[in-house]
Amino acid sequence: MDHNIKDRIRASFQAQSMMETLGAELSEISKGLVRITAPILPHTRQQQGLGHAGLTFSIGDSAAGYAALTLIPLDMEVVTAEIKINLLAPARGDCLIATGRVIKGGKRLSIVTAEVHAEADGEQTLIAILQGTMVPVPR
Amino acid sequence: MDHNIKDRIRASFQAQSMMETLGAELSEISKGLVRITAPILPHTRQQQGLGHAGLTFSIGDSAAGYAALTLIPLDMEVVTAEIKINLLAPARGDCLIATGRVIKGGKRLSIVTAEVHAEADGEQTLIAILQGTMVPVPR
Amino acid sequence: MDHNIKDRIRASFQAQSMMETLGAELSEISKGLVRITAPILPHTRQQQGLGHAGLTFSIGDSAAGYAALTLIPLDMEVVTAEIKINLLAPARGDCLIATGRVIKGGKRLSIVTAEVHAEADGEQTLIAILQGTMVPVPR
Amino acid sequence: MDHNIKDRIRASFQAQSMMETLGAELSEISKGLVRITAPILPHTRQQQGLGHAGLTFSIGDSAAGYAALTLIPLDMEVVTAEIKINLLAPARGDCLIATGRVIKGGKRLSIVTAEVHAEADGEQTLIAILQGTMVPVPR
Repeated sequence: MDHNIKDRIRASFQAQSMMETLGAELSEISKGLVRITAPILPHTRQQQGLGHAGLTFSIGDSAAGYAALTLIPLDMEVVTAEIKINLLAPARGDCLIATGRVIKGGKRLSIVTAEVHAEADGEQTLIAILQGTMVPVPR
Repeated sequence: MDHNIKDRIRASFQAQSMMETLGAELSEISKGLVRITAPILPHTRQQQGLGHAGLTFSIGDSAAGYAALTLIPLDMEVVTAEIKINLLAPARGDCLIATGRVIKGGKRLSIVTAEVHAEADGEQTLIAILQGTMVPVPR
Repeated sequence: MDHNIKDRIRASFQAQSMMETLGAELSEISKGLVRITAPILPHTRQQQGLGHAGLTFSIGDSAAGYAALTLIPLDMEVVTAEIKINLLAPARGDCLIATGRVIKGGKRLSIVTAEVHAEADGEQTLIAILQGTMVPVPR
Repeated sequence: MDHNIKDRIRASFQAQSMMETLGAELSEISKGLVRITAPILPHTRQQQGLGHAGLTFSIGDSAAGYAALTLIPLDMEVVTAEIKINLLAPARGDCLIATGRVIKGGKRLSIVTAEVHAEADGEQTLIAILQGTMVPVPR
């Protein structure tokens, strides 16, 4: 895979202050697939002390968006037009792992999905699935 | 409106460390409607320096969830089963205002919507709409 | 409102054989709003004898799409990129009424919603809400 | 797989007059997966003569719902609480094939997905993906 694409995604990711706030990290970039991991930190929880849905959404949406970006010309960005999340189980554990995939790329729209797993004691549970649309825009 | 309900929602909101991280505040609680506001802080931005979609989602989802909670017996909580967000415009400005509403309450499912506006120089722009399902669960 | 726009929408509607199969009719066309009604016919039912979700979806989606088309240059069509439906109540009664509205028009994407009501004995019940994205394409 | 479950699903399917109107047929029933096929008939088309989005939705939603039903006690039915469809390509060809799958079953909610392919000259193209929530209800 083109190193320029990986570099661009890493640079874009680092420019998102929200990702740093959430403790999120890019853990994999390949053609049409991006993985982001984030610990469940004391300051990103919901009222029962579990990971907040906003954390799950943020890394799921970003993984899906960057997956779309791996297939797009270098002078373009993508923005989320819409995305839907189904939450399957509580975000319980040490960290969350979001895997974004491109279902269909395109010049006008990219259709993407993401899965988010929670990891506790080395075991992973699927806690959310997302399905959405990314739009390429000029940088 | 019952003060116990308002108190319960305020207590639940304060127990969400994510809301504090985002600088979010409960600005209105009435029957079937909850409003949450949040500044666009330096640490909740995306790569172009605008408010992050995760910020918009987090307060929209929470406003919708708490709107559902205003219509639910005091010994219950709600969790998001699913929610979809359409992003209409960039989150540009000083702060975001999320307004959650109940379309149809119910013992098993509550159908909710939310609108999120961005405020810049005193003017508001609709930047996102959400539509989702909340599920009452025992506390 | 421009008569050419109404004529174009009526012509497009009549070209959809599915609308005739469902017994659907265009009952209102105005700027950013289109209404479609359909009886609950013997051949468009689900297993309990109520209106099929596919009927509710079809007229809700079409009303939303044509609402978008009222704001688009005459040489363009729209197609549904994505749409989500929450079903609130069974489709019980004599007919369904779908009202599509444009939340935000645009050259690349139109964000739309629709409400579907069921009418029984002159009384209307909200049975579904939809939220989606229409894409203008050349005819 | 339990024959009673297959029989129940076939009986429910045959009771849906809409499925007959669309020419739809159950082509596979297994644990957590149901497949429905439908020809693109002259009376189920949109304005350009291609298969109508309501056709794609109807068989995708039904395949997902029946997939959920394969994992549910025999005295229960399921209804669609909500479902979202992303349309990837036009419904062009001889017939459509919808494959519904259960992502997570449950007593209160079943999370499901579906894919719809169009078949033309023996070749299949993915034209839609769906993600939704089914709710078990007493028969």
